[in-house]
Amino acid sequence: MSSDNFNIDLDRKGRLGFPEVIFGQSKTVEQLKSILAYHQQQAIPALATKVQAEKAQPLLAEFPEAFFDEESGVFGLNLNDSNKTDPAIVIVSGGTSDAYVVNEVFYTLRYLGVTASRIQDVGVSGLHRLMNRLEEIKTYKIIIAVAGFEAALPTVLGGLVAQPIIAVPTSVGYGVAAEGQVALHSLLASCANGITVVNIDNGYGAAIAAFRMLHTFKPNQP
Amino acid sequence: MSSDNFNIDLDRKGRLGFPEVIFGQSKTVEQLKSILAYHQQQAIPALATKVQAEKAQPLLAEFPEAFFDEESGVFGLNLNDSNKTDPAIVIVSGGTSDAYVVNEVFYTLRYLGVTASRIQDVGVSGLHRLMNRLEEIKTYKIIIAVAGFEAALPTVLGGLVAQPIIAVPTSVGYGVAAEGQVALHSLLASCANGITVVNIDNGYGAAIAAFRMLHTFKPNQP
Amino acid sequence: MSSDNFNIDLDRKGRLGFPEVIFGQSKTVEQLKSILAYHQQQAIPALATKVQAEKAQPLLAEFPEAFFDEESGVFGLNLNDSNKTDPAIVIVSGGTSDAYVVNEVFYTLRYLGVTASRIQDVGVSGLHRLMNRLEEIKTYKIIIAVAGFEAALPTVLGGLVAQPIIAVPTSVGYGVAAEGQVALHSLLASCANGITVVNIDNGYGAAIAAFRMLHTFKPNQP
Amino acid sequence: MSSDNFNIDLDRKGRLGFPEVIFGQSKTVEQLKSILAYHQQQAIPALATKVQAEKAQPLLAEFPEAFFDEESGVFGLNLNDSNKTDPAIVIVSGGTSDAYVVNEVFYTLRYLGVTASRIQDVGVSGLHRLMNRLEEIKTYKIIIAVAGFEAALPTVLGGLVAQPIIAVPTSVGYGVAAEGQVALHSLLASCANGITVVNIDNGYGAAIAAFRMLHTFKPNQP
Amino acid sequence: MSSDNFNIDLDRKGRLGFPEVIFGQSKTVEQLKSILAYHQQQAIPALATKVQAEKAQPLLAEFPEAFFDEESGVFGLNLNDSNKTDPAIVIVSGGTSDAYVVNEVFYTLRYLGVTASRIQDVGVSGLHRLMNRLEEIKTYKIIIAVAGFEAALPTVLGGLVAQPIIAVPTSVGYGVAAEGQVALHSLLASCANGITVVNIDNGYGAAIAAFRMLHTFKPNQP
Amino acid sequence: MSSDNFNIDLDRKGRLGFPEVIFGQSKTVEQLKSILAYHQQQAIPALATKVQAEKAQPLLAEFPEAFFDEESGVFGLNLNDSNKTDPAIVIVSGGTSDAYVVNEVFYTLRYLGVTASRIQDVGVSGLHRLMNRLEEIKTYKIIIAVAGFEAALPTVLGGLVAQPIIAVPTSVGYGVAAEGQVALHSLLASCANGITVVNIDNGYGAAIAAFRMLHTFKPNQP
Amino acid sequence: MSSDNFNIDLDRKGRLGFPEVIFGQSKTVEQLKSILAYHQQQAIPALATKVQAEKAQPLLAEFPEAFFDEESGVFGLNLNDSNKTDPAIVIVSGGTSDAYVVNEVFYTLRYLGVTASRIQDVGVSGLHRLMNRLEEIKTYKIIIAVAGFEAALPTVLGGLVAQPIIAVPTSVGYGVAAEGQVALHSLLASCANGITVVNIDNGYGAAIAAFRMLHTFKPNQP
Amino acid sequence: MSSDNFNIDLDRKGRLGFPEVIFGQSKTVEQLKSILAYHQQQAIPALATKVQAEKAQPLLAEFPEAFFDEESGVFGLNLNDSNKTDPAIVIVSGGTSDAYVVNEVFYTLRYLGVTASRIQDVGVSGLHRLMNRLEEIKTYKIIIAVAGFEAALPTVLGGLVAQPIIAVPTSVGYGVAAEGQVALHSLLASCANGITVVNIDNGYGAAIAAFRMLHTFKPNQP
Repeated sequence: MSSDNFNIDLDRKGRLGFPEVIFGQSKTVEQLKSILAYHQQQAIPALATKVQAEKAQPLLAEFPEAFFDEESGVFGLNLNDSNKTDPAIVIVSGGTSDAYVVNEVFYTLRYLGVTASRIQDVGVSGLHRLMNRLEEIKTYKIIIAVAGFEAALPTVLGGLVAQPIIAVPTSVGYGVAAEGQVALHSLLASCANGITVVNIDNGYGAAIAAFRMLHTFKPNQP
Repeated sequence: MSSDNFNIDLDRKGRLGFPEVIFGQSKTVEQLKSILAYHQQQAIPALATKVQAEKAQPLLAEFPEAFFDEESGVFGLNLNDSNKTDPAIVIVSGGTSDAYVVNEVFYTLRYLGVTASRIQDVGVSGLHRLMNRLEEIKTYKIIIAVAGFEAALPTVLGGLVAQPIIAVPTSVGYGVAAEGQVALHSLLASCANGITVVNIDNGYGAAIAAFRMLHTFKPNQP
Repeated sequence: MSSDNFNIDLDRKGRLGFPEVIFGQSKTVEQLKSILAYHQQQAIPALATKVQAEKAQPLLAEFPEAFFDEESGVFGLNLNDSNKTDPAIVIVSGGTSDAYVVNEVFYTLRYLGVTASRIQDVGVSGLHRLMNRLEEIKTYKIIIAVAGFEAALPTVLGGLVAQPIIAVPTSVGYGVAAEGQVALHSLLASCANGITVVNIDNGYGAAIAAFRMLHTFKPNQP
Repeated sequence: MSSDNFNIDLDRKGRLGFPEVIFGQSKTVEQLKSILAYHQQQAIPALATKVQAEKAQPLLAEFPEAFFDEESGVFGLNLNDSNKTDPAIVIVSGGTSDAYVVNEVFYTLRYLGVTASRIQDVGVSGLHRLMNRLEEIKTYKIIIAVAGFEAALPTVLGGLVAQPIIAVPTSVGYGVAAEGQVALHSLLASCANGITVVNIDNGYGAAIAAFRMLHTFKPNQP
Repeated sequence: MSSDNFNIDLDRKGRLGFPEVIFGQSKTVEQLKSILAYHQQQAIPALATKVQAEKAQPLLAEFPEAFFDEESGVFGLNLNDSNKTDPAIVIVSGGTSDAYVVNEVFYTLRYLGVTASRIQDVGVSGLHRLMNRLEEIKTYKIIIAVAGFEAALPTVLGGLVAQPIIAVPTSVGYGVAAEGQVALHSLLASCANGITVVNIDNGYGAAIAAFRMLHTFKPNQP
Repeated sequence: MSSDNFNIDLDRKGRLGFPEVIFGQSKTVEQLKSILAYHQQQAIPALATKVQAEKAQPLLAEFPEAFFDEESGVFGLNLNDSNKTDPAIVIVSGGTSDAYVVNEVFYTLRYLGVTASRIQDVGVSGLHRLMNRLEEIKTYKIIIAVAGFEAALPTVLGGLVAQPIIAVPTSVGYGVAAEGQVALHSLLASCANGITVVNIDNGYGAAIAAFRMLHTFKPNQP
Repeated sequence: MSSDNFNIDLDRKGRLGFPEVIFGQSKTVEQLKSILAYHQQQAIPALATKVQAEKAQPLLAEFPEAFFDEESGVFGLNLNDSNKTDPAIVIVSGGTSDAYVVNEVFYTLRYLGVTASRIQDVGVSGLHRLMNRLEEIKTYKIIIAVAGFEAALPTVLGGLVAQPIIAVPTSVGYGVAAEGQVALHSLLASCANGITVVNIDNGYGAAIAAFRMLHTFKPNQP
Repeated sequence: MSSDNFNIDLDRKGRLGFPEVIFGQSKTVEQLKSILAYHQQQAIPALATKVQAEKAQPLLAEFPEAFFDEESGVFGLNLNDSNKTDPAIVIVSGGTSDAYVVNEVFYTLRYLGVTASRIQDVGVSGLHRLMNRLEEIKTYKIIIAVAGFEAALPTVLGGLVAQPIIAVPTSVGYGVAAEGQVALHSLLASCANGITVVNIDNGYGAAIAAFRMLHTFKPNQP
């Protein structure tokens, strides 16, 4: 595959404040190798999302220093390794099964230089779990709420906290919930409280959306 | 229209404990007149649901003593008029807009001899509204929870009370919520707590389902 | 994986009368191991549903005394072993192919201390099969009806017996029936008789719903 | 509108055994007038289906001798008036609300020279209503079964009688049943017994399908 | 697995004229083995449809004299081996890819004692292919038309021949056509000519529907 | 409404070869008046599509010289009145009910200076109607094929003629066909012959697509 | 209707920073009168969204000083009348037909004390219209992008500006676009640039989401 | 498999100008072998699309001189090997992941004797990538635009160039975008500019559609 087949948007960081992220799921190993090699050659970090485990193997063989999170499929090259938690963003999730999306948010933000906090498994079927952490959640500037099944967590949060809430429906569930359609539609229908929504399993998009807020309102921060 | 065109299931009360209810929505005025006249002739009460206001007018002209609730479209003939609240069943709703379904549950139960309580407009986008009434709700044996939009109320209730919960999605909403599909699917996907669901706007069905429990477990009551 | 990633709702039994059940399908083997180990450490029984066979293998290796039902994917730890049939609940199914859901209902109820009866393969395409067992079915307090394809069994049952009926659509079928949507919608549309419905393949939810009735109306029983 | 805009398939009767029927629903009054006038001029009978009541008024003014059935929207011109019941075909329906489709079948068959019988309101939520008429139903050669909501009637019939069964789903219902999709899919999924299905509310199509059988197997009859 | 878990409808042949057929797709190998063994024990032939190749292997090992058609997944035991073509039924298909459904129709009919003809790959994108066989097709009493993608073949046939046409949509296709929904809906919408439809890939159902016609109208034949 | 609220794309003709067309359906009468007045002021013709009859009345009162086609809802101002048929484009339709879309194509083309031919009501349920006109159809350069219900006409045409075929599905139909989804999907699935498709009822889009071909390949013509 | 039927969430402003807004679409005139009267009595402003014109008439008769915007259906009582444009928020729309949603955003923000700017009819089918206003758009802190049909405007904007973008799909369109599903899904699928989405036609939700950002990041501003 | 099971449309090239292409996806290896052998025997080239890699292996073993493109699944036999780029057609794609469809277009055109150009990865989330190539794109006669996710590229192109645009939605994406439905519907809804659309992933169809234009308007060329 020659470089005629891809066009890295190198200018994006200048234009938008954040660099391009590679969508790994539909690319062949050959396509990913070419694109990653190009980044390495240009000495710029790279992040690919939704890379399947079987595709990560040959990529790790080729780029042995790369980072791969099997749960989320995030594949990173030359990532900045900072681990300092930033008080701006918290990722809250409904259940343990949602961890794969929580991680996609987390690693995308880290790629952008922001280290978020995580509060997991506080779904509203046991409301006290959320209530126990509510005051802590209120200390952050932006809340990214991740939930599958009927996704009631962001709705309830929306009535309890004043901050911007970006909701990420996950494809966790079965029967009518399978593939995340119910979670998505439930979040969109949640009428009263001004939460915004991204695509199912789109942890990457939620991270960028949060970054846009920080970049605009706190330009000197991340 | 001759009586060849309908078959009242007169035996239903003996067989199942509850009489037949007439589905009014798709019947012509002529069909409804024939069926109601037949009930009147047999001196048995009758209840029709989802009767449109424009069809109720000629019916009320024909049966001036009939009862009609415009909000729900319930049309009753020779209903027992008892008003005594029964401690067994409470109907809880998310918003004022859901009142039309609350009323269908309420009047169907009264037709069956059960007078239920109503607690309306306690949706979870303002969680304290529900919390303020929680202890009261817990005093009932059966909870019928009515909600539109994303229908998070029954999910949250399911984590707070131990009683049987019959959830009724309503067609209140717009955009993705329109027609009640999101409310329905959200309730079905609500994974953790054993709530059961009936069709969108099916207040009648919820009432019968509750009646089945009372009839089976408290046979001497209603 | 640290215990920061999950929050067992240990209080659920006190609050609702039944303990939490683990949703196994979307959890990784590592997540399940952590959660099960925590239960074992706390000396409390655990039940996980929809655990895929390939995930059950390493779990059985780790917890050799565990119980695993391959048909339904139910995985149990330190389950109470009672086998005494309880006269309260009967699980009725339309076809042999529905057995995987029948078993999820059955083992979830047993985890809650209730041993239900099972009457399988009595779908209405051969009506006499159901009629032959009708009197027996009428002796139970609660009927859980499991059916795939067009799911006509619970509708017909609803016109024949007076007890509460909880219907579980299954994903058995092909063509338009695939994934259980037709069974689900058919059950919801079944207009006349007050049956209630849970999510497709949600044997667990039907078991909890039945348990809520027993717990409320016959508090000393299970 | 000149006759350039329509092409009556005058040859259809010779080719297929039955003449063309006009689909009235989407045609303007002007289009219908032209087409009907053409039939009158050619001295051939005409039948239009799904003609809305407000469009029938000006048509009846133009063709005062025409026949119009308001319930089904069937509009006929110069129909043969025979009323003799034919022992070949019976139309069975689940509920009174389905009468509009029953009539479309009935009048289309009469247009083709076949007078069918009608047995209405024998839905399976009260199974005895069907059982009471079963022996009578078995005396016919072809059964056209009309049902809305979850449409369980044809499924149950399919297990009880040996004749060809053509099922017509109706758009009677609300919530998930609205528009007849559940009835349609339920009939298609009905797995065991070889019933065939036509489009929702397609009484016309069922009549033609039945006519094809008679025409092929009993060529001298209608 | 004990025989408590299945109920063979042995009476079906007496009642309906055709014996029960086993739905193989959702049954486990163990379930199929039990059911087949029961048939063998009772010395009655058995036919299972949609048996996956990997499940057929252990079944063939257990029943080495059995017949298995890999293309359609039909599995037969003690089938009558007659090969005489019957002039009553022809199976017509749109493309080579539809052969798996053509075979399900063919072998189900043979199980019922009827040997049908097959005319394959005559889809209307090359209309002359159909026209070349039209006179031959007209010599049969019943046409079973099998088609995927947009399924225009049965529509065109419906305007050319007078016989009953049973259309079977197949799941052949991609993009919007995938899973056969377009073929199904296209057939149902095909307005003018009285074709009837069965579920996607339901070759079995089409065979039974055709058998009902023969059984009713030509009782001495198959 | 001030002119701040709309932005006529005056440059479109220079850039693309064709001027902007106004989408009338969702605009208020006030919005349409402002936009049309602006065109009149600039002395440029205007065309609005899908203008409802009740909105056309006040517009015709304001612009008495305007042209309005009630069937299609096309509203034109200062249209060039040429009537000369152009041998390049033919609009072929399946049924009389599709005339409203045929007209939208026709008047949009005339607005662009091209007068197309129309051949209506030649659907394939009576194949001879199409065959009778086939040689005539072959004399055109571009075929716009308009069809509702299952839309088999363009598929069959695709196998008979070599020219570009632009298919327009219409919303004519009922049951599964209602709203044109089946026609659309059927056309997209039509696998073999390279027809292209536009949105349901989008006569305007088909006209522009045809114009693009003429404009590119026969630049001196229209 | 007694005040038992509604529960104003009076505490919301204290808890979340913004007061409750009334969903007008599904409420009866009687329900709206009661709720508005209650607000008037408490001397607090009120805003209802999606109030149909025919319901606004009796409300305006009862509250003659009220404000009603017919395009959007926004109904306001005792609104603060400030008109000062705030440099923080711009509402950008694709077409004139989207004005009804632009207005819902605009008036909801004004109710919250924020006066936004509006740039309408800059859809990307004529890209220069957007490009001409791009530098102006970049001067705002938050962009609310409103678009129907395929909703490409927010996607293109997302690649050009660095600010937070809240996208509102509208129900403007026809054929596949009808009801706004395509606009919604297109926005959700828009993969690269971190835009967030609210429900179809949910101008109110977008306004609240923007308010959350201002409230959190610029607490002293509105 | 005998040759009774397939009917090569050998006449298609004479009739339509292009030969038949084999749909490989749903055919078994045996079916493909028979059909390819038949072509080889007749000494005519053959092209099969969407051949899965595991099926290509045995085919390549049988036809060692064949051509197979793993990315697109195109399998060719005796293809003309010309490589000369033709100035008529350019294939433009939104992202690297769309290459599999770009290749299906490319190789189908080559099979028809046309060598197209390719410009890949110029999606509008980074608009400058497209703008940089715009003048080059304008030099072609026909544009085939390939895009997944929300497929905004063809919409934007439609406002910038005057040529015919054939849009091919791809199944690249996840969440709501999965399977290409959003890309398809977005393209169909794209209102203003007369682009036409083919089925999801239907590179073959786009190639034939382009060929029809060349064949009709430039008959001496390919």
